[in-house]
Parts: sequence; C-alpha cells; structure tokens
Amino acid sequence: MNPALKWLSDSYETMLLELTEYLSIPSISTDPLHANDVVLCAEWIEAHLKKIGMPLVEIHPTDRHPIVYAEFTGAGPKKPTLLLYGHYDVQPVDPIELWTTDPFKAIVRDDKIFARGATDDKGQFFAHIKALESIIATSGSLPLNIKIIIEGEEEIGSPNLFSFVRANAEKLSADAVAVSDSSMIGPGKPSILTGLRGLCYLQVTVVGPNRDLHSGSYGGPVVNPLNALCSIVASLKDSSGRIAVTGFYDDVTDATQEERESFEKLGYSPEVLMKDINVGALNGEAGYSPLEQLWIRPSLDLNGILGGFTGEGAKTVLPSHAMAKISMRLVPHQRHDDVVEKVREFIHTAAAPGVSVTVTDLHGANPVLVPVNSVAVQSASKALEETFGVPCVFHREGGSIPVVELFDSVLNIPTVLMGFGLKTENLHSPNEHFHLENFRRGMQSAVRFYHHYAKASTL
Amino acid sequence: MNPALKWLSDSYETMLLELTEYLSIPSISTDPLHANDVVLCAEWIEAHLKKIGMPLVEIHPTDRHPIVYAEFTGAGPKKPTLLLYGHYDVQPVDPIELWTTDPFKAIVRDDKIFARGATDDKGQFFAHIKALESIIATSGSLPLNIKIIIEGEEEIGSPNLFSFVRANAEKLSADAVAVSDSSMIGPGKPSILTGLRGLCYLQVTVVGPNRDLHSGSYGGPVVNPLNALCSIVASLKDSSGRIAVTGFYDDVTDATQEERESFEKLGYSPEVLMKDINVGALNGEAGYSPLEQLWIRPSLDLNGILGGFTGEGAKTVLPSHAMAKISMRLVPHQRHDDVVEKVREFIHTAAAPGVSVTVTDLHGANPVLVPVNSVAVQSASKALEETFGVPCVFHREGGSIPVVELFDSVLNIPTVLMGFGLKTENLHSPNEHFHLENFRRGMQSAVRFYHHYAKASTL
Repeated sequence: MNPALKWLSDSYETMLLELTEYLSIPSISTDPLHANDVVLCAEWIEAHLKKIGMPLVEIHPTDRHPIVYAEFTGAGPKKPTLLLYGHYDVQPVDPIELWTTDPFKAIVRDDKIFARGATDDKGQFFAHIKALESIIATSGSLPLNIKIIIEGEEEIGSPNLFSFVRANAEKLSADAVAVSDSSMIGPGKPSILTGLRGLCYLQVTVVGPNRDLHSGSYGGPVVNPLNALCSIVASLKDSSGRIAVTGFYDDVTDATQEERESFEKLGYSPEVLMKDINVGALNGEAGYSPLEQLWIRPSLDLNGILGGFTGEGAKTVLPSHAMAKISMRLVPHQRHDDVVEKVREFIHTAAAPGVSVTVTDLHGANPVLVPVNSVAVQSASKALEETFGVPCVFHREGGSIPVVELFDSVLNIPTVLMGFGLKTENLHSPNEHFHLENFRRGMQSAVRFYHHYAKASTL
Repeated sequence: MNPALKWLSDSYETMLLELTEYLSIPSISTDPLHANDVVLCAEWIEAHLKKIGMPLVEIHPTDRHPIVYAEFTGAGPKKPTLLLYGHYDVQPVDPIELWTTDPFKAIVRDDKIFARGATDDKGQFFAHIKALESIIATSGSLPLNIKIIIEGEEEIGSPNLFSFVRANAEKLSADAVAVSDSSMIGPGKPSILTGLRGLCYLQVTVVGPNRDLHSGSYGGPVVNPLNALCSIVASLKDSSGRIAVTGFYDDVTDATQEERESFEKLGYSPEVLMKDINVGALNGEAGYSPLEQLWIRPSLDLNGILGGFTGEGAKTVLPSHAMAKISMRLVPHQRHDDVVEKVREFIHTAAAPGVSVTVTDLHGANPVLVPVNSVAVQSASKALEETFGVPCVFHREGGSIPVVELFDSVLNIPTVLMGFGLKTENLHSPNEHFHLENFRRGMQSAVRFYHHYAKASTL
C-alpha cells in the first residue's frame, strides 16, 4: 500500500478536526460585515499550507479579498507542474432559519459533514491539501511541481482573479490545472467534466413612438414595439428548435459519435427532469437527445422581457418601448464575439420598419473543451477509477465556469475538472454538506493523480 | 332670422358669465376631497335647468356621484323625443404648476375660454342647455320632446351610469340620443362620428417549470415560457399585418366604397402622424390606408409584457412564467364574446408543448356603427352645414366610447356624436380651453338640429 494512502487513513481524525476549524470561519465574500473573516480565512489557509510543508506561501492583496498563492518547485524542471485552483470564500447562509445546525459549527452526521462551504469549495479543496500533506509527510517531497492559487471571491464572480492571472501568467505557468469545485455525475460515479458551454448574453431594446399612445386612437398603422420585439424573438428559432440566426452553426463542431454514445450509457432520464421541474414535455432541437441538447448543442433562452403596462387590470396603451434579455449557450468552437455580431445583424434585419432596435452585449464567455486524451485528464481518470473501483465517466455541462476559459486562454493549459461533490449537497442553500466518503476518496484520488501525472508526463 | 338664434346672439354676454360660474365649481369626480363640489355642481345644473324652463328636473343619487335628469314632454306623442347626454364632472388639474391661470377661474383670451372642463364637457354640454333656453325663451315651448341625462362620473368610467340606464330604460326611452363630448375633425370642419371600434382585452399567462432554472444547466430541452409567449404573440399576426386568428374576420363588415372614398377627402396626412410620434414608417394591414386601419379595420396590440429578470445587467435565468396583456380593437359586426373564444382557442393551439397557458378576458366592448342615413344624423348634419357653411363630414374613431354602445344596446337608439371640441384643446391636460367660436356655433347648430329633427321625424 502506498504510504501516503496509509498516512491519510491514520490521520483521518486529525484532518476532520482541521476541516471543522476551516469551516468555522464565516468567509462570506459578498457581505462587507464579513470582510475581516475573509482575511482571517486567507491567513488560516496560508498558515496551513506552510504547516503541511509548502516551501513558498504568499498572500496577494487585491482590491477586495486576498488571493493565496503557494508553490513547490522541488521536483525539478524534468517533472510537470500542476496548478491547483480553489476558493476559500463561501455563500451567505440566508435563510438561516432553515438550517438545522449552525452553518459555521460543522457537524458530522451519517458520514456527511454539514456546514456552509462543506462541498463548495472548502471541503473539496481541502482534499487536495491533505493529499499533498500525505505525500510530503511520508516521502519528504512531491513527485511533481505544484502551484496553488486559492481565491476569496469566487462566489462574487472573481472580480480580481482574471487580472491577477493575466498579470502573473509567468509565475503561474504550469502544464495543467486541476479544479475540484464541481459535482460527480452521481453517487459512486467518478467523473471528469470535459466540456462547458459558452455564453452570449444580449439585451435587445426596441423603441417605437416617442411616447405611450392610446391603443384605440393609434392601434393599426403604428408599429407596436412590444409586438415587434416578440416577432424578433420568435424569429430567432425555427420550428425544429434550431437557432435561425444566419451562420450560427458555422463553427459548431459536432461531438464525436463515440462521445454521443458514451452519453447514452449514463442512464440520464428525461422523465426525472420533467418530474423535478413539473413539466409535461420537453421540446429542444430535433435530432438530439435532451442530454445532448444540454451538453453539446447551443441553446437560446429569453432571460427577461419587459414593456408597457404590467399592473393589475387593463390599460389600453400602445407602449413606446420594450426590452428583452436574450442569452445563448455556445458550444465548441463558437466564439462569443462572432456570435454577437451574427445575432446583432439578424435582429436588425428581422426588425419591423417603424421601430429602432439596439442590441447590447452584456456578458460573454467562450465554450471550453478539455481534450479527453491529454496526459493530465488520462492520469486523473486512471486515479479515479482505481479509487472508486469503477471507470471514470467523461461528461459535459450546460453552464459555464469562467476560470476554465481563463486558464485555457491565458495560461494555455488544460483544466482537469475532477469534482468530488454531489448535486444533492445543497450548494448555496441551507444545510450544505459534503459526503465524507467522497472527501476520503477525493484525497486518495488526488494522491494517485499526482503520482500518475508525474510519471506519465516526465519531460 | 330664427328668433332663437337672435336671442343667443343678444344674450351672449350673460351666458358667458353663467358658463364661467359653472366652470368655477371644481367637480373633480376622482378626488374624494372634491366629493362635495361634485354634489354642488349637480345642484347648480339642476337649478339651471329649472331656470331655463325645463318642467321636470331631478337629482338621482347613486353609490357615488349623482345623476341629473330632466325632461320636457310638452311637444306631445307625435313629435320625436331626443335624449341629450353629457357629464358635469371634470379631470384633476395636476400638474397645477403648468397652468398659466387658475383652472377654476375661467378667463377668456383670444376668443377661447380657459378652465378645467371648458371643452370636456361642461362647455360643450352648456351649448345644448343654452340652445334649449333660446327656443323656450322665444317661443314658450320646444319643437320636440327632450330628455336630459348628465352624469358626474364620466371621468372615472361611469361606474353607476350603466345600471341607472338599464333600470330606467322606460323613463329614458327616446328616438335618438345626442352627445357633444368629442372633437371635430379639424378647425372649421363640422363632423359627426359614426363608427367606434370595440375592444377585446386579454391577459395571457404562460407557466413552464415550477421554479426559475439556471439557463446553462437547463437551457435546450426545457421549454422557456418567455420564448413560448413571444411565439404565441408573433403568431397572432401574419406578415401582411392581418390577424391570423382563425375566423377573426368572419363578422367584419367592410366599409362601403362610398365611405372609404369619403375618408380620402379628409386630407388626413400619415406624414403628420409620423412626425408627431417620431417614427420613420407605419406598417399596418396591407390593402388599407392608415386612416382605414384606424377606423374600419381591427387591430391587435400588446399593451404590456413581463417575465424573468428585468433589472440591470445579466442574470442567467430560465424563468418559470411570463405574462402579456393583449388587446384587439374590433369593428362592426364583430362581437367581443365571440372574439374572446376564437382568440383563446387559437392561443391554446399555438402554445408550445411543455407550458400551460391561461387566457383571461379582462375587458371588452362591442363596436358601434351609427347609420349615416338615420333621421337624427341627417338632421344634425344639415344643421352643422348651415351653421359652419361647409358640408358636415362623417368620420370614425379608433377608440371606444362605452356609453354609445350602452344607448345602442339598452335603449336601442342611434347616437348622434356631434362634438364641438378640437383635439388641440388640452383635454385632461393643463390649460384646457374651448374655442368660443365653436361654443357659439354649437348653440346655433343645436337650435337648428332640434328644429330639423322635429320636422323631419314628425310621427
């Protein structure tokens, strides 16, 4: 047996106490009243990384909450460098009355640890720290070079991380980055996320008459901005559920037949989804399963719409303007900037005469695809399979994780998204918890991953 | 010269003083602080109708503001009975700071009288009262039977008038009703309104998932209620601007070629409309001029729409529900109830699977068409032409005037809509006024109208 794994087993009670201490710091990044707790938490992590034997640990102040950085380069230039990313800040605890125990006094029940941050992301990231400690404690060194970046602003959109990474690209240079801040595809099913959709979020404003008009005295010849907006929105998709914007699919790379077949084996049930959200039917793009519609196909959704009289009762107004927020999820290899221009042109062409239309780009992210065959992903997959006793599944996700695109575009390295959480663990909700079985397996997987990666990618 | 017309000329200074007194009563029906002023105004009218010689004058209390009723039946059963309708209540005066003079101290400037209620409707109705007085004063009687109903709730939607008319249909029975509470088609252009559009006002609610969802994690297979609503709305009209609801035009009676040709002679300018509301194009139903689209064709307008996230910035939500207020203007001989059912069925058929749709009937009115060839309308037309020296124009209006449908459906009599106001006289706005030239011509027209109608329709 690997001495590090034995060490993890022997030291389990101690590390639970340490995790409990870490979880007791209310590092709520969005709440100014907790700003000092966020600093205390950064200092706790700094001290802990020093304690486990990381030779360099730094705190980098930002405009808001500090970033903790650590590195070990003792494996030498012939060994790969793995960057580990995590966050030590947590979500607020409201509604506090729905918690059955104090969110900042961790408690273990049924082999789960309950506390704010247990799974998102203190507990998951702590598994990596303990894995590093176990190897250092039992061998005096690490088999590869390690860099650690752990931020305190993930729950508020990482406002300072991007500029920090761009300004320190040289310092952070690595061969791969590992992130454990997501969910496994199901209990006992180790998985690696290999694809994330991008985002193109637009606001469309339609302006017609210079004032609200009486719908009786003006209704007929005057183009109504609300009707015009609805027609624009309706024209964005065709009857088969495909997005009708000219050239929209030009850069979409189809998933391989192999990948699509692998989805079928996941046992995903549209009926479970329908029951959960209480709808009688799904109706996505023709020719693709619901899971494929979520993971490998673009989507287009209205996120909000507003115009005219929306109070109780009837007001016979022909409103002067209307607004909609429209977003598209993008898939490889669509580019956010390119899609904005295509949609903008389509909307302007689709707009009725007699109204003026403005399309504003509010937010965007490019889709990310992590090559399944990269050495880092293969090493992680092997480690997960050995630990969980079942093959690792490669899956995708319909949403976006902006840091992945950041590491891809700035550091030009693949991200291994090896989550140890479960979707049922109440992230961002009362009674957040983390299955300790997955904490233990996470630590073991990390130990194996570092070794496999060091061995497989010796330069 | 008709002695009544001479009397009107000789008594002009006196009647201006009387009108000034009438306009000084702040009978603002919507404001509870002015409830007593509304009563005082009803009593002023009651006293004035007695003073001019009306043999029966009554005040009928209602749940809110009283209705004044008067009648003269001395012309006997062989003469026609004309009902006169008007209102003595007025709009509020806000924003008071934009008035150049006190809204309740009438002042004459440039042959216009400035005061709240000057044109809407105290001044216009007062022309009828003075016309009646001039005939009684010079002949001791009236050439026809007259009934007067003047309410104090027109500006708050006449909540008690409808039940009063229904309950007193026998008492109010007449051969025609005359209303002077609208605008002429232009200065020096006498006109009679012969058609009003009806209304069908619906609220459409679309419900999808049981909660707001993350647009990344769910966008694709899940039907978005906002997109579904926009598709429903867009499907309601075709590309030629026609309403696509099955059977919608079944009961539409085309205007006669003669009437359409008469519209062309009115000199209506779409360019003036476009400039006024600052739009670059109009885009109504193909095959009809803008004026025809307003007056003789149905229209469909969104009055309001709301759903999802409508604040600043971007929120990646797939909302659970959305709502739109949709109204149609109806033309003869569409029926409100029938249209509701047709639209409801069309919307349910147009709705995407995976959402549930509710259509609520909020408000409705049937369209009204006053036959141009009725004796009353022809008599009024003749009187207006003699008074103004130019032919009277028959026109329509895109909006609805509910009392007209009331008199049509309950009393089964035609309404002669002979307005003496002008659209430019700031109804409902600061500095409301009434052109005294039209006050004088209104009185003269009324005198001539009563005589022509009495003569033409002797039973």
